[in-house]
Amino acid sequence: MTEVNYDIIGIGNAMVDVTTRVEDSFLSRHDMHKGAMILIDAEAAERLYAAMPPGLESSGGSAGNTCAVAAMLGARVAYLGKVADDQLGDVFAHDMRALGVHFPSARLTGGTPTARCLIMVTPDGQRTMNTYLGACVTFGPDDVDEDLIAAAAVTYLEGYLFDPPEAQAAFRKAAGAAHRAGQQVALSLSDAFCVDRHRAAFRDLVAGHVDILFANETEITSLYEKNTFAEAAEAARADVALAALTRSEAGSVILRGSETVTISAVPAKVLDTTGAGDAYAAGFLAGWTAGKPLLACGRMGSLAAAEVISHYGARPEADLQAIVANEVP
Amino acid sequence: MTEVNYDIIGIGNAMVDVTTRVEDSFLSRHDMHKGAMILIDAEAAERLYAAMPPGLESSGGSAGNTCAVAAMLGARVAYLGKVADDQLGDVFAHDMRALGVHFPSARLTGGTPTARCLIMVTPDGQRTMNTYLGACVTFGPDDVDEDLIAAAAVTYLEGYLFDPPEAQAAFRKAAGAAHRAGQQVALSLSDAFCVDRHRAAFRDLVAGHVDILFANETEITSLYEKNTFAEAAEAARADVALAALTRSEAGSVILRGSETVTISAVPAKVLDTTGAGDAYAAGFLAGWTAGKPLLACGRMGSLAAAEVISHYGARPEADLQAIVANEVP
Repeated sequence: MTEVNYDIIGIGNAMVDVTTRVEDSFLSRHDMHKGAMILIDAEAAERLYAAMPPGLESSGGSAGNTCAVAAMLGARVAYLGKVADDQLGDVFAHDMRALGVHFPSARLTGGTPTARCLIMVTPDGQRTMNTYLGACVTFGPDDVDEDLIAAAAVTYLEGYLFDPPEAQAAFRKAAGAAHRAGQQVALSLSDAFCVDRHRAAFRDLVAGHVDILFANETEITSLYEKNTFAEAAEAARADVALAALTRSEAGSVILRGSETVTISAVPAKVLDTTGAGDAYAAGFLAGWTAGKPLLACGRMGSLAAAEVISHYGARPEADLQAIVANEVP
Repeated sequence: MTEVNYDIIGIGNAMVDVTTRVEDSFLSRHDMHKGAMILIDAEAAERLYAAMPPGLESSGGSAGNTCAVAAMLGARVAYLGKVADDQLGDVFAHDMRALGVHFPSARLTGGTPTARCLIMVTPDGQRTMNTYLGACVTFGPDDVDEDLIAAAAVTYLEGYLFDPPEAQAAFRKAAGAAHRAGQQVALSLSDAFCVDRHRAAFRDLVAGHVDILFANETEITSLYEKNTFAEAAEAARADVALAALTRSEAGSVILRGSETVTISAVPAKVLDTTGAGDAYAAGFLAGWTAGKPLLACGRMGSLAAAEVISHYGARPEADLQAIVANEVP
């Protein structure tokens, strides 16, 4: 095994979130499916932004959030993703580096801007996301540094990476490099609609190349096309060495071989669910790479998720390390 | 009196806030005076940003916040301020227009970026601000449309406008145009250090050209160089037709001729005091221009302030109009 310099290296669509509060009627008026992430082009993004209430801007991206939260929890983290040479790119890069995340990816120049995710939060706390991929569509295999991948204990890939054209190839290159170095590959399924768009590729990848799988209930049932969570969970157990499956307020279930660990959710007043799954994966992996038992890993995931859903925005506002230190032995 | 198309027109330094949470030691390490606003140049802004934890971006600016909050409360609002033709300028302009605020100011082109305020929030909820004025320094008399000023019941000016070179002249032009049209001029003192930098000019302006004065305790005692709030309040009573003086958790005092109205603060868990004064002025003026009695105006100010200090960022996250409708008859 190569020398490990990082606990986690994340790869994902790098973007800035624009979060706003809307009534449910706004979603129906704009034909949005509550809870889903859809891709929109530049023109649709302009149109939707013009129709949106005032926003709150913060760095986002699924794997980006996971890397940020894991770094806040003390993990050594690197991240690969493509932002442009613009103000929002500055924001994203700053927010990663300020947490000590190694973020070596070259900026895109030439006019295509940094990706944005327009996030509508309804009064029930659900988030509905509209992503303009911008600079992310140029992320490809050349952006994957195999030596860096080899130096990380876990390579963490977001499912959303299957959307931009070149990123799937980057994804496979990273997974290959990680395994050749004797490291682990983790995948988050990201979104049920994303799974739906790429089910065959995901199934192949999960069965053949993933060691640690993160998914929520709708994603895992969509992946295996099962009617119940229990059936889907058993399918995941057969496919991967370790699966952490989240079920919102019902907590999470961790499966490893014949072992099953059940984790309860941490109570929270839900204001905005954006980033809940990302934070869970971060807490879990920060614990996992620190050698903690599965119960503690799951508990760290739940604590991180509870923090981010208690305010607008996907990244923690409170001192997460202090929260975890108090709650996890 | 000219026909009134707007309840309030605000003029101020248009900027985007970058808010972060720091320990008190960060302030001392960077020689910051807690609670104050200081001006920094582009290079210092780069340096401080590089040293800052991850941020949350949101539209700001003192009068900008007041205009936004007043519009949320149903007032008809216009705003004049200078942003650049860049992504942060887009954010600022969007956030104003999304609230129905008329924002006709031409963007600055040529490279100087939109202003940013780097805001450090300490565990006690106090905010310490470092402002890079960027495009704001080009705001001048030519940016003041006298017909627009004449069409607003209240012209609201932020004290911070005294810092950039050309804005004082714009300020005086606006006040003159408002009075010639038989309208009112409101001024917020903004910051005790700002008052200190421009005391003579402020004193002259307040005595001669201001109808409604907003200030907090340290600002008003600094303006009149008095040792006690009571003495400073009496000086304000003698100078202006109407003064609304805020005292944090001690509430506010409204003075009009011999009349004194005392308003209690609305209890709130303080997370970030940024924008508290701006929101108070917004609530007050939304009530005032709607013809409400002083007690209701002050209560609307307190409710708006309580909302914004309960979360990070200076602009309300909750449905302020619903809150006010419940609490103010």
